[in-house]
Amino acid sequence: MAEMPPAHPFDDDKLKEECGVYGVIGVADAANFVALGLHALQHRGQEAGGIVSYESETGFNSARRFGYVRDNFTKASLMETLPGHLAIGHVRYSTAGSKGQTAIRDVQPFFGEFSMGGAALAHNGNIVNAEALRRELIDHGSIFQSSSDSECIIHLMARSFQKTIPERMKDALRRVEGAFSIVAMTRTKLIGVRDPLGVRPLVLGRIGDGWALSSETCALDIIGATFVREIEPGEMVVISAGNGVESFRPFQHASSRFCIFEHVYFSRPDSILGGRSVYETRRQIGVELAREAPVEADLVCPVPDSGTPAAIGFSHESGIPYGMGIIRNQYVGRTFIEPTEQIRNMGVRLKLNVNRALIAGKRVVLVDDSVVRGTTSQKIKEMILDAGAAEVHFRIASPPTAWPCFYGVDTPEKEKLLASRMSEEEMRDHLGVDSLRFVSLDGLYRAAGEAGGRTPGCPQYCDACFSGDYPVAPADMIEKGFKLKAAE
Amino acid sequence: MAEMPPAHPFDDDKLKEECGVYGVIGVADAANFVALGLHALQHRGQEAGGIVSYESETGFNSARRFGYVRDNFTKASLMETLPGHLAIGHVRYSTAGSKGQTAIRDVQPFFGEFSMGGAALAHNGNIVNAEALRRELIDHGSIFQSSSDSECIIHLMARSFQKTIPERMKDALRRVEGAFSIVAMTRTKLIGVRDPLGVRPLVLGRIGDGWALSSETCALDIIGATFVREIEPGEMVVISAGNGVESFRPFQHASSRFCIFEHVYFSRPDSILGGRSVYETRRQIGVELAREAPVEADLVCPVPDSGTPAAIGFSHESGIPYGMGIIRNQYVGRTFIEPTEQIRNMGVRLKLNVNRALIAGKRVVLVDDSVVRGTTSQKIKEMILDAGAAEVHFRIASPPTAWPCFYGVDTPEKEKLLASRMSEEEMRDHLGVDSLRFVSLDGLYRAAGEAGGRTPGCPQYCDACFSGDYPVAPADMIEKGFKLKAAE
Amino acid sequence: MAEMPPAHPFDDDKLKEECGVYGVIGVADAANFVALGLHALQHRGQEAGGIVSYESETGFNSARRFGYVRDNFTKASLMETLPGHLAIGHVRYSTAGSKGQTAIRDVQPFFGEFSMGGAALAHNGNIVNAEALRRELIDHGSIFQSSSDSECIIHLMARSFQKTIPERMKDALRRVEGAFSIVAMTRTKLIGVRDPLGVRPLVLGRIGDGWALSSETCALDIIGATFVREIEPGEMVVISAGNGVESFRPFQHASSRFCIFEHVYFSRPDSILGGRSVYETRRQIGVELAREAPVEADLVCPVPDSGTPAAIGFSHESGIPYGMGIIRNQYVGRTFIEPTEQIRNMGVRLKLNVNRALIAGKRVVLVDDSVVRGTTSQKIKEMILDAGAAEVHFRIASPPTAWPCFYGVDTPEKEKLLASRMSEEEMRDHLGVDSLRFVSLDGLYRAAGEAGGRTPGCPQYCDACFSGDYPVAPADMIEKGFKLKAAE
Amino acid sequence: MAEMPPAHPFDDDKLKEECGVYGVIGVADAANFVALGLHALQHRGQEAGGIVSYESETGFNSARRFGYVRDNFTKASLMETLPGHLAIGHVRYSTAGSKGQTAIRDVQPFFGEFSMGGAALAHNGNIVNAEALRRELIDHGSIFQSSSDSECIIHLMARSFQKTIPERMKDALRRVEGAFSIVAMTRTKLIGVRDPLGVRPLVLGRIGDGWALSSETCALDIIGATFVREIEPGEMVVISAGNGVESFRPFQHASSRFCIFEHVYFSRPDSILGGRSVYETRRQIGVELAREAPVEADLVCPVPDSGTPAAIGFSHESGIPYGMGIIRNQYVGRTFIEPTEQIRNMGVRLKLNVNRALIAGKRVVLVDDSVVRGTTSQKIKEMILDAGAAEVHFRIASPPTAWPCFYGVDTPEKEKLLASRMSEEEMRDHLGVDSLRFVSLDGLYRAAGEAGGRTPGCPQYCDACFSGDYPVAPADMIEKGFKLKAAE
Repeated sequence: MAEMPPAHPFDDDKLKEECGVYGVIGVADAANFVALGLHALQHRGQEAGGIVSYESETGFNSARRFGYVRDNFTKASLMETLPGHLAIGHVRYSTAGSKGQTAIRDVQPFFGEFSMGGAALAHNGNIVNAEALRRELIDHGSIFQSSSDSECIIHLMARSFQKTIPERMKDALRRVEGAFSIVAMTRTKLIGVRDPLGVRPLVLGRIGDGWALSSETCALDIIGATFVREIEPGEMVVISAGNGVESFRPFQHASSRFCIFEHVYFSRPDSILGGRSVYETRRQIGVELAREAPVEADLVCPVPDSGTPAAIGFSHESGIPYGMGIIRNQYVGRTFIEPTEQIRNMGVRLKLNVNRALIAGKRVVLVDDSVVRGTTSQKIKEMILDAGAAEVHFRIASPPTAWPCFYGVDTPEKEKLLASRMSEEEMRDHLGVDSLRFVSLDGLYRAAGEAGGRTPGCPQYCDACFSGDYPVAPADMIEKGFKLKAAE
Repeated sequence: MAEMPPAHPFDDDKLKEECGVYGVIGVADAANFVALGLHALQHRGQEAGGIVSYESETGFNSARRFGYVRDNFTKASLMETLPGHLAIGHVRYSTAGSKGQTAIRDVQPFFGEFSMGGAALAHNGNIVNAEALRRELIDHGSIFQSSSDSECIIHLMARSFQKTIPERMKDALRRVEGAFSIVAMTRTKLIGVRDPLGVRPLVLGRIGDGWALSSETCALDIIGATFVREIEPGEMVVISAGNGVESFRPFQHASSRFCIFEHVYFSRPDSILGGRSVYETRRQIGVELAREAPVEADLVCPVPDSGTPAAIGFSHESGIPYGMGIIRNQYVGRTFIEPTEQIRNMGVRLKLNVNRALIAGKRVVLVDDSVVRGTTSQKIKEMILDAGAAEVHFRIASPPTAWPCFYGVDTPEKEKLLASRMSEEEMRDHLGVDSLRFVSLDGLYRAAGEAGGRTPGCPQYCDACFSGDYPVAPADMIEKGFKLKAAE
Repeated sequence: MAEMPPAHPFDDDKLKEECGVYGVIGVADAANFVALGLHALQHRGQEAGGIVSYESETGFNSARRFGYVRDNFTKASLMETLPGHLAIGHVRYSTAGSKGQTAIRDVQPFFGEFSMGGAALAHNGNIVNAEALRRELIDHGSIFQSSSDSECIIHLMARSFQKTIPERMKDALRRVEGAFSIVAMTRTKLIGVRDPLGVRPLVLGRIGDGWALSSETCALDIIGATFVREIEPGEMVVISAGNGVESFRPFQHASSRFCIFEHVYFSRPDSILGGRSVYETRRQIGVELAREAPVEADLVCPVPDSGTPAAIGFSHESGIPYGMGIIRNQYVGRTFIEPTEQIRNMGVRLKLNVNRALIAGKRVVLVDDSVVRGTTSQKIKEMILDAGAAEVHFRIASPPTAWPCFYGVDTPEKEKLLASRMSEEEMRDHLGVDSLRFVSLDGLYRAAGEAGGRTPGCPQYCDACFSGDYPVAPADMIEKGFKLKAAE
Repeated sequence: MAEMPPAHPFDDDKLKEECGVYGVIGVADAANFVALGLHALQHRGQEAGGIVSYESETGFNSARRFGYVRDNFTKASLMETLPGHLAIGHVRYSTAGSKGQTAIRDVQPFFGEFSMGGAALAHNGNIVNAEALRRELIDHGSIFQSSSDSECIIHLMARSFQKTIPERMKDALRRVEGAFSIVAMTRTKLIGVRDPLGVRPLVLGRIGDGWALSSETCALDIIGATFVREIEPGEMVVISAGNGVESFRPFQHASSRFCIFEHVYFSRPDSILGGRSVYETRRQIGVELAREAPVEADLVCPVPDSGTPAAIGFSHESGIPYGMGIIRNQYVGRTFIEPTEQIRNMGVRLKLNVNRALIAGKRVVLVDDSVVRGTTSQKIKEMILDAGAAEVHFRIASPPTAWPCFYGVDTPEKEKLLASRMSEEEMRDHLGVDSLRFVSLDGLYRAAGEAGGRTPGCPQYCDACFSGDYPVAPADMIEKGFKLKAAE
């Protein structure tokens, strides 16, 4: 089974988005478009992917595979098994525990056969009361097939007394707490929903006479679809040939709390989030950093590839020349399979090499997007000093990550987050660099378009990973002993 | 069988290096080091790779595989079959014709059993009189197993009357015309040779008590070896435990003619060639371009990834801001397998997306490393204009490529090279851009460290692909009807 | 995905058993014993197999694979994932419709997590009211994961109000109509059940301090277990470390109706059914045939391999010499994969060849076990005549197969059964042989040990495929329009 | 890579034929016919197979694979790469040493490109002076690619001064000592040769307007070809569209010495060898055995499957009933892959089971084809006694195997052959059976059609494995210290 490869060379020390969702209705061979969309969303989940399509003659068809979209959903022999004008898909990253061949059952979309017909569903986000719901459902005779929190939604739908699938989905989602952007389908309808806070993104596009739903706009571009609008927080859209796009508001109103880390790292730089270019926001974070934390230096280097836009902004604002001080090996998209002991120990050198001729003797500003455990920051520092750098200054394009995410991002336990245990000064000493500075939370909000910075008490974004301010109480985790900030 | 993926998103329209070679002696599990070295040389050949090792108990062992080094030569089960303190390896790209599973016989290193023992050999370059030699050898009873030009060397060695393998190799190489950097091994010796003109690179490194030979210095870095020196043009080194590095000069002296395209595109930016940083040379080409071909514009964008250093240089010299106008999908390291028709037609969009928010309304300078057929330059232009660019100016970090290479680079036939049929002005019209400029041959030489530019009549580099000035007559090709410049 | 190969060279024209079940408790590495047992039961299902084991540390583990047991469940890497002292398994053949990679979900054992813990279940037989049950369960909110009739049992168990899994299983099975021999397990118990009529076999064996349940005794032999007794029709046994074998009678009493075709073809000749050797019963059928339908001839030939015992009996009783007139290619255990058109057309010749030297000029009696569609009987006749046989006499070791089975055997639709459309005489003409005779139903019963033949009105066996006398009304099929004999 | 499975359940204790050869000319898609022929010859070699075809447009094409013919050469995608009206093929078994993936180079047919064009060659037999020839060829500059003795022939052909390939082949074969049946091809000719003694079989068949060469007649039957005649010992046939079948006699005349073990075990029972049915010869050996070594008993059982014809003959002659006392598992065509330790220890039980009900209390005659090491005879005896047999009498359908074969059969070293160390009486004691008798050498000759038995001094067959009378001195082995009978 193919091992899954993250985009970032130090991916062991990055937060990971857990999912991307996609759906298309009203075009021939819809599954092919979904495959393309999922390919463009691959950065949101590399472990596995799945597609379900519907066609009247053969009914619902599905294929779920471990590995990259490009290695599975491009084979004509597979795609021919997914006919029809309506299809949805999902890419997923998951925690190590449930990885492996037996977990193909955990790969979405999930499917349920109800008395009024079948429905398939793909979910990006995380349900924070999933364990309580699961216990309740099992007590009443539901049989779970996966270890996924998302499967609850299907079982809740199965037990609803409503007569249509969209109504059953509303019933089910009202029981669910947490973050969710969902793409679902019946035999005739494509459905999109975002939770009341709109934590995860979901956008609507137009492709010919049909429609597409996608986690990000970059996946509309790839199929030649035009971006129409974002699905609103708390909105459900039901799209069909007959009625076009119908909009519903099944939930109580709440203030939007979009995930600010989508701007910092998760989303692709060529996507548009909330009307803003992700690239431009990241470049602007570099500008803010250069203002907040200037330094005398000879060279600004990005940590490839995610630090690049902020490094360009920092260089531009500071006037310090920009250069590629760290070169990435193009052939490490996929991690080494069954690596020998010797190769595992090579670690960073397999992925990166320092451009010695450029670095030697220089005072270097290294721009990275975040510090999670801090392990790789340390290795990079060593490589740079070995190559003869005179000084090393870290500039981080996000505030210190001190709290875990419970809304669909794979974060280490709180104790493993460097910033949960150390002050900025302690981190500088720990990493042994000449200086270490993070952009401020206000600086980050300004870069993301909030000229006045963060509104205290009523922040415009979910920034729980930086602030510990969780907009939805993580019920299952609290039951297991997690302490909220107020409770510490 | 895995399809092979080039690094560059428009690889169909790039010249391709055909090989990388590597060897290690004097360290335990030498094959593991060779695997790492080949991984670092993967950009020089992605189709297949092979390693041969020697150990007294099991003799010579070999493994040859299609696909990436990281996907094959990292499995403990395979590497255990390659024991010993001495090993060599090869990565290869080849033309479409001989691709496929049956051509595993074409994958190097090649091996021959002679009366005094066995020898293995890996070759980077091209033998221009291989077909004549092959006919002669077959007439005398040699049986060829591959379609590779390099196999001639083994057969010439088998027929030599010399008593040692290094002497037989000298005998054989004196019959051979063309470009070659060779790494070979006997049961006790590691051997490196460069042809008299030194067209292809080969460097020597020290690793612990042992030695390494490599096409490029970046592959010394990955194993922690220190760079000692380049193997000289026309030099043969024979390295053994007892005698260290012995140097021989088996060929008539000739002036060095190192391939200047190694600086422009083939070698990795973090390698050192002829004492110069490849990254710095490329950045300097951008500086030269900005001087030779200035333009009023708002943004300098590299065509990712190979145009990046020159774009940085151009931006720095011109003062025009640098930005990522084209975003590359990180998950297209490997080409789509068995792509459906629809996906094949997507072409560029699978690999690149335009950063619309950055491009829209701007006058854009696009910096690319070369123009071969021109097909992808055209697609990129279209994407940029579709995204709303006000003007598009191409700046190319090499002179027009008008002649095929016969020294180990896969080039299209002469007629397919855009620059062989059109002037710079015609190319500009053909591509439909606002301006198109190539760096001059003198500018390129200056960037590569020759302050006085190209010395006419006695150029410091092989630049046949730009100038048509072939330092070794391509005998087999001339027999097949190829016309030299003088003969046109 | 490997295509699965039946044992019989003309398997397209044979009835097929759909399942074998096996379970072991009380021995270390129980899954290894289950693998061996399933290997010995491979003739009962070749498409796929699955094993579930339980161990306190890792909980329930499962592996389900397409293909032969020997090709999957013999790999140390897989078997190590199935630890524990308790395991059950299943081999399965299925109809073409649900074949293919997506149907791995249809491979048993099935697993359900209940509030009191998990249970796994493997089923041999067929539930005749499965579709009605399925509709009812879906109406109440159950989500089905497979297209298998057996999944109903798990959902019925999930909805039971009983507090223990054995009690829930009793609840569930009382709702189920049809034929079932079930092996199931909880965390601590191995459970075996046979339906009230005992249509499918299930036997109990002792292995060291532990116990085994198996469809046939031959699969006790392979692990060195001793045969203890058959599970009785309508009996449920619950086996645990603490309480040994406990016996329950959850169903209303009914007269036993064991499947007589198990004697004729399905079971292995070295198994013991109802106290009788299958080999001996088959040999005795040949004796009965020789008495009922004597013929003057020179040679008795079995149609390999299933006709062999009856041919030996026929030869012995008639005094006509026995010989191998048809030679089977040993290497057709597995069907040709992706066969070219030409090879598909070769059909029989890939599998069998006539022993011309033996056949030529002789009057040949061909003994086969059954005639289903008659297609292969015809091909064999042609081969025999082409080889120069003087006469061809078919003797069939079962009565005419005129009715489909609804109790776990894959039969063609009624119209495709040759004997449903033709009299014995018409079949003889259709096949173009010199004579064709089937053993009588009474002769078959005598050979199976019923000295007085079949008891009319109260037959000792289920012989519905010959008589149309169905002991349980096939509810789902009747709803779809199937006509019982009385209704014709 | 798939492990290869022999047909016989105790194959570790059997002599193994090392090859089968096949060729077809003059029919469209010749490679498909070759694949069918090789499938029918699979019993002669299960490790690997290869096919070479020729077509004017694409030239020579070849495919060589480990594993069964049916698993490789039935895929349309592969067979399409082997176009043309002329093709040859080879199946092979080889000794353990050179097994594994790297030895694909040892898989025939071998191919050589000569100045007058290419030729491919497949060889059944063994060259007894191959090592001396190999040393000589290497000294003169030949490069060997395999460890196969057969490759010498190609190199000898390459060095011949003759102008045509058939003449070069004659030149080469005159240098070669040992046993060979060869099928070869040029661009226009199919060539067949047998060594002067005719040790291995080779037959000619007619298929439509074309011709086939095959090791055995059973492989003519499978493609619907008619048997024309055997290639004579010492004959070379050259078959072409223009000239039909031309016959040559390149070697000195010698008396024929066909391998008598082909009758005993290697060839398929449905083949015709030297005008005699193999089945009939084997049955007749059983008759001879019953006459030479009668015994009072209740049951004659074959050891499946190769002992069956002799058991039928023994039963017929002795009047003792024939029965299937040992049942073979149909699903052990392929050996267990990566078997767990536990499964490896199961040994015989995976493959065979005793039919207890038949055996219990009976005096049993077990008929087997040969005794090699005696290891499995012992295990079978134990199974039979465990099942309650009253007496066990072994009757062996060949004389004691006391000498290794050097003519293309894989035999253990002399010391490992039970009969080289023990008398018949000692073997009986060693095996612990009630009686053990082998057919006499004269009895074997009589059964094979030589009414007068073996002609001393001038035997009609090669029977070296029984008699130690080697018709060609095994030169390489003698050099390594092997002692002939006279020298003992």
